[in-house]
Amino acid sequence: MALDSSLLSSFSHRRCLVTGGLGFVGSNLALFLAEGGADVTVVDARVPTHGANPHNLDGGARPIDVLEANVGDEEVVGDAAARADLIFNLAGQVSHVESMARPLFDLEVNTRSQLAFLELLRSVGSEAVVVYTSTRQIFGHPRYLPVDEDHPVSPVDVNGITKSATEQLHLLYTELYGIRATAVRLTNVYGPRQRLAGDLQGFLPIFVRRALSGEPITVFGEGAQERDCLYVDDVVECLLLAARSAEAAGEVFNLGNDERLSLRQIAEAIVDAAGSGSVESVPWPPDRDAIDIGSYYGDSSKAKRLLGWEPRTPFAEGIRKTIDFYRARRTHYL
Amino acid sequence: MALDSSLLSSFSHRRCLVTGGLGFVGSNLALFLAEGGADVTVVDARVPTHGANPHNLDGGARPIDVLEANVGDEEVVGDAAARADLIFNLAGQVSHVESMARPLFDLEVNTRSQLAFLELLRSVGSEAVVVYTSTRQIFGHPRYLPVDEDHPVSPVDVNGITKSATEQLHLLYTELYGIRATAVRLTNVYGPRQRLAGDLQGFLPIFVRRALSGEPITVFGEGAQERDCLYVDDVVECLLLAARSAEAAGEVFNLGNDERLSLRQIAEAIVDAAGSGSVESVPWPPDRDAIDIGSYYGDSSKAKRLLGWEPRTPFAEGIRKTIDFYRARRTHYL
Repeated sequence: MALDSSLLSSFSHRRCLVTGGLGFVGSNLALFLAEGGADVTVVDARVPTHGANPHNLDGGARPIDVLEANVGDEEVVGDAAARADLIFNLAGQVSHVESMARPLFDLEVNTRSQLAFLELLRSVGSEAVVVYTSTRQIFGHPRYLPVDEDHPVSPVDVNGITKSATEQLHLLYTELYGIRATAVRLTNVYGPRQRLAGDLQGFLPIFVRRALSGEPITVFGEGAQERDCLYVDDVVECLLLAARSAEAAGEVFNLGNDERLSLRQIAEAIVDAAGSGSVESVPWPPDRDAIDIGSYYGDSSKAKRLLGWEPRTPFAEGIRKTIDFYRARRTHYL
Repeated sequence: MALDSSLLSSFSHRRCLVTGGLGFVGSNLALFLAEGGADVTVVDARVPTHGANPHNLDGGARPIDVLEANVGDEEVVGDAAARADLIFNLAGQVSHVESMARPLFDLEVNTRSQLAFLELLRSVGSEAVVVYTSTRQIFGHPRYLPVDEDHPVSPVDVNGITKSATEQLHLLYTELYGIRATAVRLTNVYGPRQRLAGDLQGFLPIFVRRALSGEPITVFGEGAQERDCLYVDDVVECLLLAARSAEAAGEVFNLGNDERLSLRQIAEAIVDAAGSGSVESVPWPPDRDAIDIGSYYGDSSKAKRLLGWEPRTPFAEGIRKTIDFYRARRTHYL
């Protein structure tokens, strides 16, 4: 177990609700919470192309209740939401490409359902701590690097617009009503329990899948755009620190990593770790070119300062653990 | 007629669609377009508490087609939207208070319907010029005055969040698809054809109604917060200039007025113009205190520079015309 045990045990017997908890980050978080002795309920809509995988909760230290529902479904989610002390609100669609293909669905999943969920919390007088996972995509093309919290919000896809609106709704409900919400803007996260099938969860799972299958990893153009990838355990740690911090309510945090790699370097490190696959360059497909944001890396000084967070996993180490995980559980992920 | 005839005649025979065209700004705009010889179709959902009034189009220079529908209703709006050269997209809910009482409805009207409308334009390959009316409410509590386009967006109510998202969607669809959209952020607009009943259209119609009815105008607290009110003809002129400008696509414009008045001064000017009513101070109601933004006035230098716009109606003159209008058509508005 990679996370500090005193951090985990501070959630012992706390009633935690994890939305999107069958998904990638959500399931890793739920398992760590269970490890720390928390009373964990997961809600997940199990949208087929999203990240939910029932095997993601295999091997939990304690039983985890699973509710299959949209977060805005009061009938199914109502009781668990009303009872929760801590809500990790991770449910949503993350695919930028899919948000352009089906924008109304993206708005439904990422904003309308989330607003219904916030209304539900308001209606029961919830005073829960809520940690909402937002995305770097709200910033669009970076005007400067690394991107801090003062960087203008200027989304270049529907997903960035719907996530930004929902982030604002969380902060508004914190300002006006009883909840205490924090928004944490994730950047490229990788690790165990991510959906590898399909091409809708970003480039990292595609790269991992191709390496594991011995296929070439295609890098668009030179592959020179830089990214700061984060291993999922480091992200979970940040979400837990945010939930535990009295100062986090009403705040937004950009995540980032001082270790920055080009897409080509990332691909090569994955091929190295897998011992299979290769790296190939292809021209930019036009539908991605339109919404590509160039190099991106975040400035996480605020999270370091206020939450005491520090990403601790070098890419070479994290990707090795990731490859090992999927090799051992190939049938559930490939 | 207050608007320049060469500006109006530049819309002659152009196919113009005005959404929210039975409402306050929309109907004034539709009448001016008809005056200039445009081929005008209006779409309006006629939501009971919103601004639609069928008498708002009385006395038009040419017949104006009226479609009763939500802007996202493809079946009713589809043909007119596909045919339009120019779309003045004014449909929406403007009440900040109502957006807090019924947030999901605000999202439905101000964002989901609008996204469906944009998708409709995309599906027919529209290359229309679109002028979308946004709101100063997206800025929340001003960090500095006057508020220009670089001011951070930080809404303090659901209305500000939903309008901001829809503004971004317009700019995104301009960037990626065929339409050429401009967003114009309105501040307090007053004049003929505004809904005076109810308390959901902002303070100006409430003040006018009370003065006309010989009732006291209540000012919250000292009434010291400053506003830059705009007479509706000046706003219509700006929307027409934006529609005509080749440089406006993809741009946002803040409107404002160099004439700034405190709420108390505004109330007193209205009482003077009406020759009835009075001004009284009352304590802040808590539900408004929470979403009040203090003093606000906009910096419209960008609109002046790029569009050649200049507000021309002093408040004393505009409010006199306004009072005269409602006196003459009392039964339709009071």
